Amino acid sequence: MEKEQLEHIRHSAAHLLAAAVEELYPNAKRTIGPAIEDGFYYDFDFGAEKINDEDLKKIEKRMGEIVKHWKQFEHREVTVDEAKEFFRDNEYKKELIEEFAHEGAVLTFYTVGKFTDLCRGGHSENPSKELRNFTLLSVAGAYWRGDEKNKMLTRIYGTAFPTKEELVEFLRLREEAKKRDHRKIGKDQELFLIDDRVGKGLVMWLPNGTIIRQEIEKLAIEMEEKYGYQRVVTPHMAKEELYLTSGHLPYYKEGMYPAMVMDDGTYYMKAMNCPHHHIIYGSSPRSYRELPLRLAEYGTCYRNELSGTLAGLLRVRGLTMNDAHIYCTKEQIKSEFTRVMELTMNYFKIFGLTNYWFRLSKWSPDHKEKYIDQPENWEMTEAVLRKVLTDMNVAFTEVEDEAAFYGPKVDVQFKSVIGREESMSTIQLDFLARERFQLRYIDETGKENGDVFVVHRAPLSTHERFTAFLIEHYAGIWPVWLAPVQVAIVPVSEKHVEGAELLADEFRKAGIRVSIDKADETVGKKIRKTSQSKVPYALVIGDKELEGGKLMVRVRGREEQVEMEKNEFVDKIVHEIMYRGQV
Amino acid sequence: MEKEQLEHIRHSAAHLLAAAVEELYPNAKRTIGPAIEDGFYYDFDFGAEKINDEDLKKIEKRMGEIVKHWKQFEHREVTVDEAKEFFRDNEYKKELIEEFAHEGAVLTFYTVGKFTDLCRGGHSENPSKELRNFTLLSVAGAYWRGDEKNKMLTRIYGTAFPTKEELVEFLRLREEAKKRDHRKIGKDQELFLIDDRVGKGLVMWLPNGTIIRQEIEKLAIEMEEKYGYQRVVTPHMAKEELYLTSGHLPYYKEGMYPAMVMDDGTYYMKAMNCPHHHIIYGSSPRSYRELPLRLAEYGTCYRNELSGTLAGLLRVRGLTMNDAHIYCTKEQIKSEFTRVMELTMNYFKIFGLTNYWFRLSKWSPDHKEKYIDQPENWEMTEAVLRKVLTDMNVAFTEVEDEAAFYGPKVDVQFKSVIGREESMSTIQLDFLARERFQLRYIDETGKENGDVFVVHRAPLSTHERFTAFLIEHYAGIWPVWLAPVQVAIVPVSEKHVEGAELLADEFRKAGIRVSIDKADETVGKKIRKTSQSKVPYALVIGDKELEGGKLMVRVRGREEQVEMEKNEFVDKIVHEIMYRGQV
Repeated sequence: MEKEQLEHIRHSAAHLLAAAVEELYPNAKRTIGPAIEDGFYYDFDFGAEKINDEDLKKIEKRMGEIVKHWKQFEHREVTVDEAKEFFRDNEYKKELIEEFAHEGAVLTFYTVGKFTDLCRGGHSENPSKELRNFTLLSVAGAYWRGDEKNKMLTRIYGTAFPTKEELVEFLRLREEAKKRDHRKIGKDQELFLIDDRVGKGLVMWLPNGTIIRQEIEKLAIEMEEKYGYQRVVTPHMAKEELYLTSGHLPYYKEGMYPAMVMDDGTYYMKAMNCPHHHIIYGSSPRSYRELPLRLAEYGTCYRNELSGTLAGLLRVRGLTMNDAHIYCTKEQIKSEFTRVMELTMNYFKIFGLTNYWFRLSKWSPDHKEKYIDQPENWEMTEAVLRKVLTDMNVAFTEVEDEAAFYGPKVDVQFKSVIGREESMSTIQLDFLARERFQLRYIDETGKENGDVFVVHRAPLSTHERFTAFLIEHYAGIWPVWLAPVQVAIVPVSEKHVEGAELLADEFRKAGIRVSIDKADETVGKKIRKTSQSKVPYALVIGDKELEGGKLMVRVRGREEQVEMEKNEFVDKIVHEIMYRGQV
Repeated sequence: MEKEQLEHIRHSAAHLLAAAVEELYPNAKRTIGPAIEDGFYYDFDFGAEKINDEDLKKIEKRMGEIVKHWKQFEHREVTVDEAKEFFRDNEYKKELIEEFAHEGAVLTFYTVGKFTDLCRGGHSENPSKELRNFTLLSVAGAYWRGDEKNKMLTRIYGTAFPTKEELVEFLRLREEAKKRDHRKIGKDQELFLIDDRVGKGLVMWLPNGTIIRQEIEKLAIEMEEKYGYQRVVTPHMAKEELYLTSGHLPYYKEGMYPAMVMDDGTYYMKAMNCPHHHIIYGSSPRSYRELPLRLAEYGTCYRNELSGTLAGLLRVRGLTMNDAHIYCTKEQIKSEFTRVMELTMNYFKIFGLTNYWFRLSKWSPDHKEKYIDQPENWEMTEAVLRKVLTDMNVAFTEVEDEAAFYGPKVDVQFKSVIGREESMSTIQLDFLARERFQLRYIDETGKENGDVFVVHRAPLSTHERFTAFLIEHYAGIWPVWLAPVQVAIVPVSEKHVEGAELLADEFRKAGIRVSIDKADETVGKKIRKTSQSKVPYALVIGDKELEGGKLMVRVRGREEQVEMEKNEFVDKIVHEIMYRGQV
């Protein structure tokens, strides 16, 4: 009911916005104004008039005055003619009225205070009391009925909450989200580039972004080597035959890039990495001694999303992920799942991410048509996964009818620093692949055994999404091991540049990433620049430092400088890099 | 003339082969028999008869007897009817005769000893003396006239040389080439896989091959960081517009993968990495302080080769290379080219490759239409490149009319261990890109300057070709730093496995790649396996070793074992890995 109440408040707020606009801009024509996820909007035709932020304040003020007199919404049925007469100067409303009438709907007018609108209802019961915590947020253009052939209208966005505290928190998170926007920080820090000449949704990683990518990939290779993974590299495409075997064709064809017809058949960009890995598994006879066999790859897949839906790193067409497929026996499912869970949690620990929980997605015996028909395997594997989650004593929920076609899965759910909930990683069990790809092994008795289970896992999401998440999470303040530049050296003057270069070389040999600011600017300005660029450490290098004196280290985010011997400083950073900030 | 003489000898040898076959297999029908690059062949229709290696020996022996009586080839013109009458039972020759006649050619018969063939000439002048160093090599199937709709004939390959020494050397290199065949070693060592379901010419790197790839990529990243390169990652495709700007479209369209039409335009797989890098260069205003700017990437490109021409790693459709583009001013060309040459030679030193020289490819003022019309830049840059080669005191040749369209280049030519000459790496100068991509920088005076030169360089060839070359060069005996397994541990019995595991963990923590052979087999057999697999070091682990005794180290290729303390052994390997075998 709470959600409904919130929607009623916001829907009422949309009416209130329209009432205020009508009083302030008598020539403006109102069209429609629904409640939406984060608030509400109303679209108006303001004619030649442009609405700016100052205008929003004025409208918001008027809304506050009007709502005081809004005791209660009252409604009555009206005829088509009556409705059209009421809105005789408004072609938008008339179009709606005719359409509703054509559909056979009953037309209703809702009135509150002096304001009446065509509406289907769903309002606050006591607006003058309940509708007090609202604000207008922004102005945007929107085509009438979302069709680019129609006239461009002016959309005013706002939001409303039952309590003042909720509104304040919403506005705070909204400010945070703006500051942490991965597109803004990505541009400021020169992390990545998306260019229309290369293509929408296809990310180019600039030098700074490539450093972060290499560091994360290095972490993955190191961690997974310890966990017994073997790495492979597979092409970004495959023949039609492979995707017919896997079942991506024809079922997922719309989501795939268009076919390329070559002289030996038809090729598609990779939709998933699994089929390639299954081919590698099947490329030589496997013994029980080789299981579990874990094949890992920073693999790239492609999705043919509509160009209009693509946005920054969050919605792309080319996705690279630290993917892996584990081939194991039934008896090994539990330990393998446990190890993947451990690995996943270890990753998050290193990145300092704590605000997450697990979600076990199960099949539904009531919708058997959506799932592979092996009830005994569903029961068995779901029980194993539940046992893993319980034994590990982690927070988890269970949801029915959310599994993959081929088996149950565990997703990792995150609450981001700006309050958004999202699915980050996934661990999926698969008892279909063995049929489609004839996955086999020779068991202890020397017999061929087809009971191979596959675990799909991508603990670090896609690299694109994960990087966007990290940018937002750190607000661009990267931990030392990920920071594209770890130490910024600022020579006091031209004559200190050479000494600074030598120092930089020493640092580089120790594996530290260094920049030197040789620009012809004041030391003060250069220090402000390093501070803005969020480099972890900065060193001003003058006569004293070059004569072997201690270094005065400026630590990111701290006012006072720290005095350190050079070796002590190098050791400290090398330690922070090597252990990735973990003790 | 030498080459012509060789061809005459081989062409005569083909006649000799046909003469021997005719005597031994009177029912066989001969068709055609040319000299080819490495020898000669002759195609026969043997009817139901199968020819095997034993038969080849018999035929070769008869060739030796016949040639003694071959004093001189004599020829005479014949009419169509005469020729057809001579070959009345041979439909293949009759088809040829009719075709030649249709083309208006003069028909000639060549006779030597008792043997006559339809032929256009080009023979040894004194076969009984010159034609003594020949051998038959192999039998294969071949369709008449290369058309799969025709009958399958039997092709007999052979070769011949002026001297015995040349023949012996040829056979030795041929044996070497067989032993070193990258496809065979690649399969034996499980380095890579090409599977028709994934696609022809698309390489999948298996775990062992991926280790080698990762090591080479790591080397490249480390080396090039020292040389001031910045790394980027770009997508494997781009929009049509990019390749229209670069000029790959329409000129190179046939070599590119087919177009993919999406909702926002037409996409192509990458033909080259340069256009993407140019976009990155142009993505922000560049100052003279940033030049030379060096953008490096392990980039993947695609070529639409005909499926029938693809072979192992040497002819593929997807090629990954350690590519880079250097953006510099005119004054920086010399130092940048010198640095790239140094880097290239340093790479080869690390891989132990010494048998190479350089080739400067220049434009031709006589074929100006093939080259960008900037004569002053051609003269200037060729002089600079020649100066670099001269100053560095390296062996080089100059060839005219072999430059790229956009500028002169220096290729690195190799003589492989099996005697094949090939172009490995390339360093190219480019003064066209700046026009096509509007490459600019802000110079010392604050003005926009368009005089940006680009150096394209790929010192390690493509990864596919370079790996094939290395497999052949090392004959699969990888240097320690590249070896997929560096230490093979052989536990004496079941009860030593646990101790062996602990030892392996110690080694792994030191960064050494280890395998443990837990198979239920004798120690002798396991040692033979490690020896065959060419692992650099093997350790048999029994009671003595687990009680802390010294290790008995079996070193690849040596008979006697070496006694070593554990730490000493670890230090030795870590040193070999870290310095990549360089002192």
